Amino acid sequence: MPLRVGIIGTGAIGRDHSRRINNVLTGAHVSAVNDVNVEQAQKAVDDLDLKAEVFANGHELIQSNAVDAVLVTSWGPTHEEFVLSAIAAGKPVFCEKPLATTAEGCKRIVDAEIATGKRLVQVGFMRPYDSGYQLLKNALTIGEIGDPLMVHCAHRNPEVPESYVTPMAIQDTLIHELDVLRWLLDDDYVSAQVIYPRRTRFTHSKLADPQIVLLETKRGIRIDVEVFVNCKYGYDIQCSVVGELGVLNLPEPQSLLVRKEASLATNILTDWKQRFIKAYDVELQEFINGCLNSSITGPSAWDGYAASVASDACVEAQETGAIIPISMADKPSFYS
Amino acid sequence: MPLRVGIIGTGAIGRDHSRRINNVLTGAHVSAVNDVNVEQAQKAVDDLDLKAEVFANGHELIQSNAVDAVLVTSWGPTHEEFVLSAIAAGKPVFCEKPLATTAEGCKRIVDAEIATGKRLVQVGFMRPYDSGYQLLKNALTIGEIGDPLMVHCAHRNPEVPESYVTPMAIQDTLIHELDVLRWLLDDDYVSAQVIYPRRTRFTHSKLADPQIVLLETKRGIRIDVEVFVNCKYGYDIQCSVVGELGVLNLPEPQSLLVRKEASLATNILTDWKQRFIKAYDVELQEFINGCLNSSITGPSAWDGYAASVASDACVEAQETGAIIPISMADKPSFYS
Amino acid sequence: MPLRVGIIGTGAIGRDHSRRINNVLTGAHVSAVNDVNVEQAQKAVDDLDLKAEVFANGHELIQSNAVDAVLVTSWGPTHEEFVLSAIAAGKPVFCEKPLATTAEGCKRIVDAEIATGKRLVQVGFMRPYDSGYQLLKNALTIGEIGDPLMVHCAHRNPEVPESYVTPMAIQDTLIHELDVLRWLLDDDYVSAQVIYPRRTRFTHSKLADPQIVLLETKRGIRIDVEVFVNCKYGYDIQCSVVGELGVLNLPEPQSLLVRKEASLATNILTDWKQRFIKAYDVELQEFINGCLNSSITGPSAWDGYAASVASDACVEAQETGAIIPISMADKPSFYS
Amino acid sequence: MPLRVGIIGTGAIGRDHSRRINNVLTGAHVSAVNDVNVEQAQKAVDDLDLKAEVFANGHELIQSNAVDAVLVTSWGPTHEEFVLSAIAAGKPVFCEKPLATTAEGCKRIVDAEIATGKRLVQVGFMRPYDSGYQLLKNALTIGEIGDPLMVHCAHRNPEVPESYVTPMAIQDTLIHELDVLRWLLDDDYVSAQVIYPRRTRFTHSKLADPQIVLLETKRGIRIDVEVFVNCKYGYDIQCSVVGELGVLNLPEPQSLLVRKEASLATNILTDWKQRFIKAYDVELQEFINGCLNSSITGPSAWDGYAASVASDACVEAQETGAIIPISMADKPSFYS
Repeated sequence: MPLRVGIIGTGAIGRDHSRRINNVLTGAHVSAVNDVNVEQAQKAVDDLDLKAEVFANGHELIQSNAVDAVLVTSWGPTHEEFVLSAIAAGKPVFCEKPLATTAEGCKRIVDAEIATGKRLVQVGFMRPYDSGYQLLKNALTIGEIGDPLMVHCAHRNPEVPESYVTPMAIQDTLIHELDVLRWLLDDDYVSAQVIYPRRTRFTHSKLADPQIVLLETKRGIRIDVEVFVNCKYGYDIQCSVVGELGVLNLPEPQSLLVRKEASLATNILTDWKQRFIKAYDVELQEFINGCLNSSITGPSAWDGYAASVASDACVEAQETGAIIPISMADKPSFYS
Repeated sequence: MPLRVGIIGTGAIGRDHSRRINNVLTGAHVSAVNDVNVEQAQKAVDDLDLKAEVFANGHELIQSNAVDAVLVTSWGPTHEEFVLSAIAAGKPVFCEKPLATTAEGCKRIVDAEIATGKRLVQVGFMRPYDSGYQLLKNALTIGEIGDPLMVHCAHRNPEVPESYVTPMAIQDTLIHELDVLRWLLDDDYVSAQVIYPRRTRFTHSKLADPQIVLLETKRGIRIDVEVFVNCKYGYDIQCSVVGELGVLNLPEPQSLLVRKEASLATNILTDWKQRFIKAYDVELQEFINGCLNSSITGPSAWDGYAASVASDACVEAQETGAIIPISMADKPSFYS
Repeated sequence: MPLRVGIIGTGAIGRDHSRRINNVLTGAHVSAVNDVNVEQAQKAVDDLDLKAEVFANGHELIQSNAVDAVLVTSWGPTHEEFVLSAIAAGKPVFCEKPLATTAEGCKRIVDAEIATGKRLVQVGFMRPYDSGYQLLKNALTIGEIGDPLMVHCAHRNPEVPESYVTPMAIQDTLIHELDVLRWLLDDDYVSAQVIYPRRTRFTHSKLADPQIVLLETKRGIRIDVEVFVNCKYGYDIQCSVVGELGVLNLPEPQSLLVRKEASLATNILTDWKQRFIKAYDVELQEFINGCLNSSITGPSAWDGYAASVASDACVEAQETGAIIPISMADKPSFYS
Repeated sequence: MPLRVGIIGTGAIGRDHSRRINNVLTGAHVSAVNDVNVEQAQKAVDDLDLKAEVFANGHELIQSNAVDAVLVTSWGPTHEEFVLSAIAAGKPVFCEKPLATTAEGCKRIVDAEIATGKRLVQVGFMRPYDSGYQLLKNALTIGEIGDPLMVHCAHRNPEVPESYVTPMAIQDTLIHELDVLRWLLDDDYVSAQVIYPRRTRFTHSKLADPQIVLLETKRGIRIDVEVFVNCKYGYDIQCSVVGELGVLNLPEPQSLLVRKEASLATNILTDWKQRFIKAYDVELQEFINGCLNSSITGPSAWDGYAASVASDACVEAQETGAIIPISMADKPSFYS
């Protein structure tokens, strides 16, 4: 029996996941949708030709007998309540980032999930599902470069809208590195520092751009992440891990090698949606498989909590210029 | 309703396609299997946990009401009869290469299909579904390098078994270039020549290795393909298209860039099965979609015929050392 | 005592070598110049501030007591007589290509040199002095890829003047590959074939462009050289040697790697003079050193003769479309 | 008239420069040598077949009428006195790094040189003469990536001897980046911070390895330099400049691209002496030319002083863990 999925939030990402579940992935279909704007929910059903019931209320969708699993793709501040509601209903739930808008909110979800005695929550961190990061992870795991000692990263966007301000470099952008590097290194952060280089002329007064974030992990690994969101030239994600025996670089996205007009070149993407497009497929298929097998294995509520704690520390580091310690409760054995 | 697929031939590739249909792709499941060795068919059902009926006879499988579409993955010499049988039954059929063992056999299939008035046959040429070749095709289509004038290719395998002899360099190996270059250039071959370089010490007396195949197309494009099947170092497929304004190179497969032991390196694959693994998924999903939409669009029986004609000419060029003209009947409008 | 060099021919290359000898290299200076146009010779002396006597006659320059060694950089058809004159005078002579305009002329120089009992002639083939080709040669010599079996080359110019016609693709362009590949492989040619791909729209009626030249060597190595002199995108020299154990590629010229405007790129040169600019320094320094040590070691008159014989065969292959055998007298032990 | 050079210090680098002057460069020869060990000086003369007088005392060599210019390649602590002596004699002097062992010592040289009213001193910083760094500099100068905002660097050695301890990561290694980045950016440092990542197992107790040095410039450019001197895999110098419009990467050293043993690779050097070997030629030729033209233009005493001041601050940053401000006197107009 295919998994029947209810989707809360039919904006761009909710619609994209609907398409993915019905047309690309295997083992599931969308059986119910909800949106704070009911007309938009109905429009999604019509546009995508979904065989899905429209619910006026997200909690009712969660309770419905026609829903085996829940996707939360609504506005960020509503995530916590819907995830808690799904946990209360004993139903597996996939929640786009952020899991909650505060570390405390994330912790409430962690506690609720632990109380049920089984993993129900997967957070929408897709980078660990990217084939390039998986090659990095595998190489580290087999010890190809010995112990990792440093990681040099860059997260570059061609441009951001005027509404994008300094803390968003952490909360919207660095958050992906905070998640994927924890996973990659199997380690946690102990401190953060933010450095402000000379600003690009292409930024505005409320956005310090670029920024460099320095992180330290429990094992002493040092990470530097350049966050540069008006870099003009493309959407470019770089990750270089330096170990005792060598250096591993994240592969560039696939591109033709072109000789033309006095240049030997590959393309750099400009649209972030293209960069991890396959990773979205893989993460959601893993959630579906996890539901069908009663074994959710993707990024956990604890991962969402850990990223949130680190993100808060980075924002404090932005504001103070100081080296900010990062401390979390010990990881519950439930998540090991 | 999912497509119910019957599979004739449960060897390695038949089993792999079964796994793919049931676990990876969407819109289909395996409902019937047949093999010349019935025990092996049953074993495939058991091993892969298929919900599929075992047929002792391929033609009965084709006739079964439980089968909407047929996959022919049996021994090459049996392909023609099963494809013709599926056409006679009016059922879509996906046939692994070769479509038939002779050009005449391919032509019989073409004629039978045309007689039904609708496309039923897809040939298992997977290269056009490779994302790298698709980038090449798109770049040519938009005129990125103007008209193509030359194509330089290499098809290298690390090694082949003793049973692999000179003509197989064409029939088993070059056949993929013969197909994909027709598709890439939207052109047909008019002549073939084979050149024998100095032999590698790693070959045996019945295999001239390497070989260079020179092809000319109707539009005058010149193609050279190095076929080197004991190259030792890896499975390496290269394709470089030289046009009036520039040169396009097929991307290398994704790999970490590693600095280690005085070397800055990416990996080269050694196992051919890894090279086009995603292309197999895409080609078979396209067949499933084509069946569900009553619109088969993949490599056609005509493509199978054209590859077979060119292959025969190349073998003659191997044997004679001469420049062998290649001529085919005009392409039926049915396939345009 | 520095070597006193007399230069016959003060056109672009003669002036460039003058500058090189006086300002870049060590161990020599220009002491005499001659040109068919005496005023141009005097102008070169003035412009370059040479301390050099101007001779109205090249043979007198060769005889002068103020000249230890001769550079022949005059018009091609005059090369043979000046080289023979220098040999007759017992003076070392560096001659730009062609050594003579016919294979017979080259052979006369070979015979004259052998008669003197010592090497006096160095031909201006600079590719063997390029650091990239030297890396290739070293790697082949140490057996890094086992025996070479095939060589794939391209010689691409962005454009050529209207005066450049079909045979010049051999005589002016391929000639460099003919020389450097003999040296690289330590082998001689036994046959040549020329293939004409579809013409680029950027050529004219008297120039078949591109062309592909197929060469076979005594040891059975097969070489294909794409000659494409209106390729538009740059001056691009490629050489890939396929051996029993692997493939070696000539390095690209040094360039920054630039991420900009959605592209990850290195530059391709457009001016051929930049490509081998350092090789010119090294070849001429080697000639100077050879003169000072009485031991000329660079490309010999025999190499000039061999390139000329192969060039003639390639032109015949252009004209006939046939596979043309190439035969030379055995290499005199004098040149071993 | 060729420049007559006297060399103080006939250790490895002194001998290497002797060979370079006499055999590789143009316009100079070695006329005098001195070493604290006179026998070693005589041995250098014999081994290298120098036509040079051996002096028992460096100051006497400087005074000799047979010496037009001086090379100081003796033990570091003696540099200051010999450079001052050469300045006092009014003779141009090329001094290997360090110019002096303290910033104060460098400043004394600066003052002495200014007092003579003309440039006499060139410091042996060779990186600005590397063709790769020159490409970087040119690209920045023409504004190819707009204003530079950040520079990411790595300086990696395969290993160091036991005698190499923590401060030497600055004084012997980072010193080259401190010099070349000032030149590249045409900027000065205002602060330094040092971060200690997890140590490699291949270091010893007195060497923190790797280290990351963070520098800020007057214009606000942020630089991070990874110094990793037991990286095992090779001698690897990286420099990536991030500007408002793009990113420039220092080219990798020239290497064949090799396909072999399941790897597509270029070589990484392991011997540092190979990395900048051509830059040594260029810097010393520039010194010779400067002497002959009475116009010394290479790295100045002021550059030596500035590198020394920055180096001292970095060592303090190593010891304290703090962000250390860097302040220098204003640059004298003499050096502009």
